[in-house]
Amino acid sequence: MPTPAIPKDPQYNTRVKKSFKKQQFMDFIGAQLFKVTPGFCEIHLSYHKNLSQQNGFFHAGIVGAIADNAAGYAAYALMEKTSSVLTVEFKINLLAPADGKLLIGRSEVLKYGKTLTVCRSDVFIVKNKIEILCAVSQSTMIELKER
Amino acid sequence: MPTPAIPKDPQYNTRVKKSFKKQQFMDFIGAQLFKVTPGFCEIHLSYHKNLSQQNGFFHAGIVGAIADNAAGYAAYALMEKTSSVLTVEFKINLLAPADGKLLIGRSEVLKYGKTLTVCRSDVFIVKNKIEILCAVSQSTMIELKER
Amino acid sequence: MPTPAIPKDPQYNTRVKKSFKKQQFMDFIGAQLFKVTPGFCEIHLSYHKNLSQQNGFFHAGIVGAIADNAAGYAAYALMEKTSSVLTVEFKINLLAPADGKLLIGRSEVLKYGKTLTVCRSDVFIVKNKIEILCAVSQSTMIELKER
Amino acid sequence: MPTPAIPKDPQYNTRVKKSFKKQQFMDFIGAQLFKVTPGFCEIHLSYHKNLSQQNGFFHAGIVGAIADNAAGYAAYALMEKTSSVLTVEFKINLLAPADGKLLIGRSEVLKYGKTLTVCRSDVFIVKNKIEILCAVSQSTMIELKER
Repeated sequence: MPTPAIPKDPQYNTRVKKSFKKQQFMDFIGAQLFKVTPGFCEIHLSYHKNLSQQNGFFHAGIVGAIADNAAGYAAYALMEKTSSVLTVEFKINLLAPADGKLLIGRSEVLKYGKTLTVCRSDVFIVKNKIEILCAVSQSTMIELKER
Repeated sequence: MPTPAIPKDPQYNTRVKKSFKKQQFMDFIGAQLFKVTPGFCEIHLSYHKNLSQQNGFFHAGIVGAIADNAAGYAAYALMEKTSSVLTVEFKINLLAPADGKLLIGRSEVLKYGKTLTVCRSDVFIVKNKIEILCAVSQSTMIELKER
Repeated sequence: MPTPAIPKDPQYNTRVKKSFKKQQFMDFIGAQLFKVTPGFCEIHLSYHKNLSQQNGFFHAGIVGAIADNAAGYAAYALMEKTSSVLTVEFKINLLAPADGKLLIGRSEVLKYGKTLTVCRSDVFIVKNKIEILCAVSQSTMIELKER
Repeated sequence: MPTPAIPKDPQYNTRVKKSFKKQQFMDFIGAQLFKVTPGFCEIHLSYHKNLSQQNGFFHAGIVGAIADNAAGYAAYALMEKTSSVLTVEFKINLLAPADGKLLIGRSEVLKYGKTLTVCRSDVFIVKNKIEILCAVSQSTMIELKER
């Protein structure tokens, strides 16, 4: 992964955590920022029936939200202290039913560009203590300087 | 739009409503099935701070969920009575901040195939009584017969 | 479509044609710039067996190239005289076999932003004088100023 | 990668090569099937000015075609002897200009399902003997039995 070893902002961890906390939707569904390093992010979400689709599994919209958010913070961890990040687009393939107790989104930056950052995310569902790849995603993020 | 004028299941409306009700996530966020016809679906979602990202706007994950769900039910309305529907994949471009009081997802079926159905969704944000196109999406749905 | 009625560059037509001509790949496959207006572009491509996949139809890669190129020039027609355009990403759904004599790509700009432009493309295959929608696409373009 | 170690068709290699040869477009642009194993495929394409866009680099449509084709054959190598394969959809992010002498597409199957197969592709451009990741892609393939 061609991401810089040294982040532009040494306090990236605090900055990411602060932004994550401001996302009330993450709190509302119970998502947790599990890990963030420059160019990588992992988010965990425990199952609750409020998050389910018609078969009782995690809703595809939730799976997409976790993939997108992991990507956003993987990218944001690399950005300037004074920048903000927005999702330009994402695409997700659902590989298996998200039928389990814990949803894990992991994303890594593939290219950190001057304006745009491209990430790949894997989403796993944990069932009987085994992680199953249930979705894969590609996203583009934009860095808004001085905002 | 090359969708059949006569749906395979005359009771499609009841069937879609029933499935929507079983999606606890839709109830949890307060989304409403506003309209469904064979090959078309519209979903409404009023703003609540629980649905927000770091700037206070609707979270991109929510925007994606509404686009995906509208697509799913636009497709499902065309399907056999005994079929179920799953999202294979979706891709969404976010065009403008979802900054407003009401989010509207509208989706139409572009191709209803034997196995796969392709939909296009537009998501609008209503601000000062004006609808602004804030996201566009393409999705693939699969029809699972006799399930 | 919220594109400006008056293009920033009155000579957009000449500029687009010039850029299209410089794309040797378009000449190589025989593609023609059929029409361009600010925020819209149509490209035509006659069938030749050199463009075929294993069943003798237009190759999916060709279908994608026509969708992408129509999008690029729909966007480029809106841009500053001194800007250049690059594809950031595109996503295409193939709806029907591209089995016919003429492939037509039409793209329109959905959002012309300061940096990024989002387009939707429809690709049609003409068979027995009838246009059949064979692919739909969404793309993001970037405007590179003063290059 | 959760693909079966033992392919359903022991003669998959011959079958893939035969199908690749029938794609006249691949021959037309000079692409070569470099390697295929069950669930993996690598395609090489030497630069020629006929394949270029306005700046003289490989055209984005070519980059997409190589990513798509590598995915198609990675999937096809896993399929039944009597099946055929079609692209349902693909999405590609262009990360760097495809400015170099050789384009390499590598794809692997992430999920080989009963009907649908999902692949991820990486496209590299070789310049001064160094491989640079210039595009990443996700695709869905469909297996058509007995055709």
